[in-house]
Parts: sequence; structure tokens; C-alpha cells
Amino acid sequence: MKFVQRLERAWSAGDSLLCVGLDPDPARLPKHLAGADHPIFEFGRAIVDATADLVCAFKPQIAYYAAARAEDQLEMTIAYIRQRHPAIPVILDAKRGDVGSTAEMYAREAFGRYQADALTVNPYLGLDSLEPYLKFADKGVIVLCRTSNPGARDVQDIESGGRKLYEIIAEKAARDWNANGNVLLVVGATYPAELAQIRAIVGDMPILVPGVGAQGGDVAAVIANGATAEGTGLIISTSRAVLYAGNGEDYAEAARSAAQKLRDEINLCRKAGR
Amino acid sequence: MKFVQRLERAWSAGDSLLCVGLDPDPARLPKHLAGADHPIFEFGRAIVDATADLVCAFKPQIAYYAAARAEDQLEMTIAYIRQRHPAIPVILDAKRGDVGSTAEMYAREAFGRYQADALTVNPYLGLDSLEPYLKFADKGVIVLCRTSNPGARDVQDIESGGRKLYEIIAEKAARDWNANGNVLLVVGATYPAELAQIRAIVGDMPILVPGVGAQGGDVAAVIANGATAEGTGLIISTSRAVLYAGNGEDYAEAARSAAQKLRDEINLCRKAGR
Repeated sequence: MKFVQRLERAWSAGDSLLCVGLDPDPARLPKHLAGADHPIFEFGRAIVDATADLVCAFKPQIAYYAAARAEDQLEMTIAYIRQRHPAIPVILDAKRGDVGSTAEMYAREAFGRYQADALTVNPYLGLDSLEPYLKFADKGVIVLCRTSNPGARDVQDIESGGRKLYEIIAEKAARDWNANGNVLLVVGATYPAELAQIRAIVGDMPILVPGVGAQGGDVAAVIANGATAEGTGLIISTSRAVLYAGNGEDYAEAARSAAQKLRDEINLCRKAGR
Repeated sequence: MKFVQRLERAWSAGDSLLCVGLDPDPARLPKHLAGADHPIFEFGRAIVDATADLVCAFKPQIAYYAAARAEDQLEMTIAYIRQRHPAIPVILDAKRGDVGSTAEMYAREAFGRYQADALTVNPYLGLDSLEPYLKFADKGVIVLCRTSNPGARDVQDIESGGRKLYEIIAEKAARDWNANGNVLLVVGATYPAELAQIRAIVGDMPILVPGVGAQGGDVAAVIANGATAEGTGLIISTSRAVLYAGNGEDYAEAARSAAQKLRDEINLCRKAGR
């Protein structure tokens, strides 16, 4: 099944546009996990089980696993989601970008080794650097367009012919790169005006929106500016606000409460918009 | 010691601008290594020992290790270079690009876990996404400017105010991002005219030049257009042409011959240019 179809089913099944990002910072894990054989996996598994009925996707961020020398625990985490919650797609957040022969290896890593359903990628190297991912027609290829950080303006706001670079990337993604119907974009919640512009360019293409929660993005603005006519089209991702909602033995319940609150807030805004 | 100083010493010590890229494709390793406990490490070690006196740097490409589930062998390879050939800097080619909190994790991975001397990074997310690397003042931060692939034109040739995106990146790198004197650029050997433009923008900033060998870049044009007045300023990187020069038991000697030929060709061009 195509990634976008899987996503549509997940949006419906949980009545949710919420994605929980798995960014397990070893310094912030609950202390009582310290003695576990695989503390990062245990943490991720508990978060996943506590929030699975509230989300449309999980998004592990590979940097946190790599910094901790814990690629094995990333494998375990994704395998666990696929086995226990098979309807929920897994987005590997790795922002890959390299020339073709190397991109082939990154595709093998993401879709072979980790069995991810989708991967985030960087557009700076152009179409041929994306083809090794795009040819996996059932996998999602989520291209950075407007990132959530303050410095996003430095390069992405460069203007050419009256359009900014992020608009040009959105056009290329929708027009030139999406032959297999498997391209999505990343647009930060911290830039709602840009989200509206990009939505106008790409039609119904799903957009991954990080930056609500710790980074300060506003949910109502994201829905108003980014949702499609059906009230979907968005994967609204939060990480720290859910993962570290609590840090005691009840961290998973605290995470569930935070996720539920955000899912419900999103849904209120969706209803208000109809 | 600053990375650029280490590089200058390595240029002098080996009278070489050549960098050997370690891109160990499991499908192309010599067959007799198949039974080894750590075939990728054994391969890399043999290539390193066979070429160490001919190079100014080694550049392992992390994608090849990650696709093979062999991060441990990447650690072993870099540790081996640092122990046996401590004067030769190690560039981790990973082309990282992510928001600040995640970039902190990638910096920890590259400079802590792997102990690399320099890291390649992607500029699309802007300055704040680079700061977690730049603050390591002794490490090299090698920013993608003009990549070696055909599709580089798709995004990097976008024009703004009469300048192309890769020129704007070169200016930002030289003017805004280099407060610690630890920024370098990537410019593909396959774009010699662009290399000359970029050299004019960045003064003596060292440039990593992939794309000679299998990708078809011309050494004479790279030296003529990219070398500084001192006849240095370049890290000319080749991978497949050296790694797979032979595939029998004498692969390391074949790699040495290929590296020596390229080093000598580079040096002939350097002499001709003076």
C-alpha cells in the first residue's frame, strides 16, 4: 500500500493528525530506566504503547539513537511498532541528502535495515539525489521545504523571480519530483504564513509539521493555514512536550495525557474550521 | 590544534592534496575478506595502511557503514587511523542538516562517538543549524556548496540578484559563518568553472573536492581553478577509483598504485601552475 494511503487510514482510525516524535535524549530519560538493558528502547516502547491510539504516525529521530550508540535500539523500537501497532506508519527522521550512489545506501538503511515507511530528506542536492528514495513507490519521501528553526530564513528565504526558495522547492516537489505520488513536505509550525503559501502550491499533498510544543508553534494557525478541505493533509509532530511531560515512574501516563490534550486541541480546531 | 592547521601540515608532510574516501560497498569487497570477523574494517585498514603516506586526509562515508549495520566497524576504522596515522585528519562524510537540538546530537555522534576531525554538513537549514558544529572550534565544518552530481543544478543554480545559490552559500560561509575559522566548503570536481568562481569568493578557505575518478572530474581543471597561490587549498577526494582498483588478494597494492598515480598527477598539475 502507498504511504499516503496508509497515512489516510491512520488519520481516520485514530481521528488524529498527531505524530509523536521519538527523540530519546539519554540525559532526560526517567531515572528508574537507567538500569535497564535497553533503556532507550524501553522508554520508546512505553511512549508508543501509551499513545498509539492517539496518533497517525510515529517519528523516531535517528540522531538521538546515533549519538547514544544505540542503532540497535532504534531497530528494536521500529520493529516493535510494526509488530504491535502495524497500522501506524513510521517516519524515520534522518534528513538525508547525498549524491546518487551514496543515497542508494541511505535508502537501504532506511527502508531495508530499519523498515521505515517514510524518510525525511534534504532537497539541496536536487532530483537525482532523491531518486534512490523516490523509486520506492510505496515509501514516503518527505522533503524539507520550510524548516521550523529561526535560521530557516537564512537560506530558504532567498528570493528568485519574486518567489522564495521554499516556494520553489514546494513547486518542484509537487510538479517535478512526485511522479510516484510519494512526495510529502516538511513545513515548520513556527511559520504559519509560509504554511498557507505552501498549501496553496501543493494542493492536497500531505505536510509534516514539526514545531508545536517545545518550539512554540500554534495549533490553531497550523490547522487554519495547513489543513486540506477534508480537514486532514497534516502530520503534526511533537516530541519533547510529550516525551518529557513527566519524568517519574508515571512518565508514560503523563505522555499520554499530553498527547491526548494536543490531539483534542487539534481536533477542536479542525471542527472549528469546517 | 585547529583543523585547518592539521590539514596544512598533512598537505606538507605527504606533499599531497589527495584524500581517499572510504565508501566500502559490501557487494564490491574482495571475496577473500568475506569470512573475516569485521570485513569492512579489514578492508578499510588495508586501504589506509597502503595509502597513508600518499594522502592529506581520509574520508569515511557513513552511509556505507550504516547500510551494512556496521557502525562498530566505522568506529574501529577511525580509531585505527587515529592510532596508527595520527597526523592524518579524518573527515566524516555524513552531510548532516537539522535543527539545533538535533544537530547537538549529530555533533556528539561525529566528534564524540566517532572522534572525527571534521564533518560535512548541509546548509539548507541556515546558520543556527550549523552552530552546534561550529562551536567546536578545533573541528572542521565542511559545508556543501556545489555538489558533484548532475542534479546539483536543480536547486544550487537558482538565481537571486544575479548570483546563484551556490555563490550565496559561499559568501555566507566566508563572511557570516566562519567566526571560528573552521568552515570549509564542498565543491564537486565535475564543475570546474563554478570552482573558480567559488575560489574567488572565499579566498584561501580550503575546499573539499569530490568527483575525480569514477565521477569523471578533471584533475588539471581542478588545480587550475581551485588551488590557492601556494598551490594548496584543496582536498581532492576519490573513493571508488582507489578502493576498487583491484579486487583480488592484491587489492591494497592496486589501491596504492591508483592513489600514487592520482597524487602524482595532482602534483604535476600543481608544478605546472606555478
